[in-house]
Amino acid sequence: MKIVLIGSGNVATHLGEAFKRAGNEIVQVYSRTLAHAVSLSTRLRATPVDMITAVITAADLYLFCVKDDILQSLAEQMPRTSGVWAHTSGSMPLSVLSSHPSIGVIYPLQTFSKDRELNCANIPFFIEGIDAATLSFLQSQAQAISMNVRELSSEKRRVLHLSAVFACNFSNHMYALAAQILQQEDLPFTLLNPLITETAAKVEEMHPFVAQTGPAVRFDKAVMRKHLELLSDPKMREIYIALSENIHVIAQSDHS
Amino acid sequence: MKIVLIGSGNVATHLGEAFKRAGNEIVQVYSRTLAHAVSLSTRLRATPVDMITAVITAADLYLFCVKDDILQSLAEQMPRTSGVWAHTSGSMPLSVLSSHPSIGVIYPLQTFSKDRELNCANIPFFIEGIDAATLSFLQSQAQAISMNVRELSSEKRRVLHLSAVFACNFSNHMYALAAQILQQEDLPFTLLNPLITETAAKVEEMHPFVAQTGPAVRFDKAVMRKHLELLSDPKMREIYIALSENIHVIAQSDHS
Repeated sequence: MKIVLIGSGNVATHLGEAFKRAGNEIVQVYSRTLAHAVSLSTRLRATPVDMITAVITAADLYLFCVKDDILQSLAEQMPRTSGVWAHTSGSMPLSVLSSHPSIGVIYPLQTFSKDRELNCANIPFFIEGIDAATLSFLQSQAQAISMNVRELSSEKRRVLHLSAVFACNFSNHMYALAAQILQQEDLPFTLLNPLITETAAKVEEMHPFVAQTGPAVRFDKAVMRKHLELLSDPKMREIYIALSENIHVIAQSDHS
Repeated sequence: MKIVLIGSGNVATHLGEAFKRAGNEIVQVYSRTLAHAVSLSTRLRATPVDMITAVITAADLYLFCVKDDILQSLAEQMPRTSGVWAHTSGSMPLSVLSSHPSIGVIYPLQTFSKDRELNCANIPFFIEGIDAATLSFLQSQAQAISMNVRELSSEKRRVLHLSAVFACNFSNHMYALAAQILQQEDLPFTLLNPLITETAAKVEEMHPFVAQTGPAVRFDKAVMRKHLELLSDPKMREIYIALSENIHVIAQSDHS
């Protein structure tokens, strides 16, 4: 299988390496920034290109791993090719690629950072195809790198992506705010690691409504008032109040 | 060592079991609700009491594991005893116990839920003592159940507790909101487990500022606008906007 990677960021890097390990050939890496295309091409033994019109036309799979806002215009600038075009975006519909006949989606539900190894086998992949043949093709490709592949419509993928923003991006932001608070007292962030690990591990077994602990779910006003005294940043106070109120609202509706 | 547990909730249960496993005798469990005192006493082979004036006066350690708002009044109702009194609260100062001469704090930085086993050995314990002898006593007690014990003042413990509310209670609330979003589309929460696990694991190696991914840190307005279209609940919209803005502010200050 010959694969062209459109994009050279975190998703392109992780998926490119996984597909290469699964026995495929990454023939080209496109990036509008040549240095980025060269860097990832070197890792994957591919050819770099910085003009979208220069991608080869005879690959089996063209994998779009680019930012949502340039996906459609890049697809429209692509040359006519054989093979399947698939994008990897959680929030863009399948139809964004409709300048080509054989189109699909391979969406990995995971947070990718540079310089962090990830085992793709455990990542859930959500696939979609314009027709049965394309879907089946993408399913076999995804199953070669992950044990957790399922079909999902564009509509549902959009909702899944929104839930992932809360579960990942926003929970990481809570870690960031905790780090800011500790910094003021010169306390190391690493103190929180066992707590963070256990908080994440708990929801593998319990629903997060049941797992909720802390002053907000008990609606312990004395503790919350003392916490607000410690928070001088207005944005942090706003977040503390909004989240505490919402935890309380959910806890009450849960018991009614 | 004879220990009296004042309280019968999650913290009393987990610490009581850990101290018993470490070879101590839990002589009594106090709860104002007799059924609760009986239930935990049965697990720990202790005697239940529901009147604070009925606790024995000759134990070595009186461990207060009760809600912050009743801690001081309970301490004031205690009979005169020998031994050390220690509370387990993150946000209450040492001085709340000052009706007794030998007082201290053993604060476990962890989230405790009923019916969930926890290995105390990995839990960070933060101790404080009114004098060197009390501190040294509490240190040896804490070290018998955990490998991670350090001294911390009431002032710093209060800040640590606030950071834990963000890192644990609020990140769990993010999981709860993600669960609510998925429920609308009949998607199972378990889909998010690999993402939640990886998000927590990342910050063992990277600072959360560096680990941040998603539309808010890229300030991808198109994606954020589409997400807001999917959120009908006004509280959820407010939270989405406040957190996205704050992620963007931190990302910018980080690069300046």
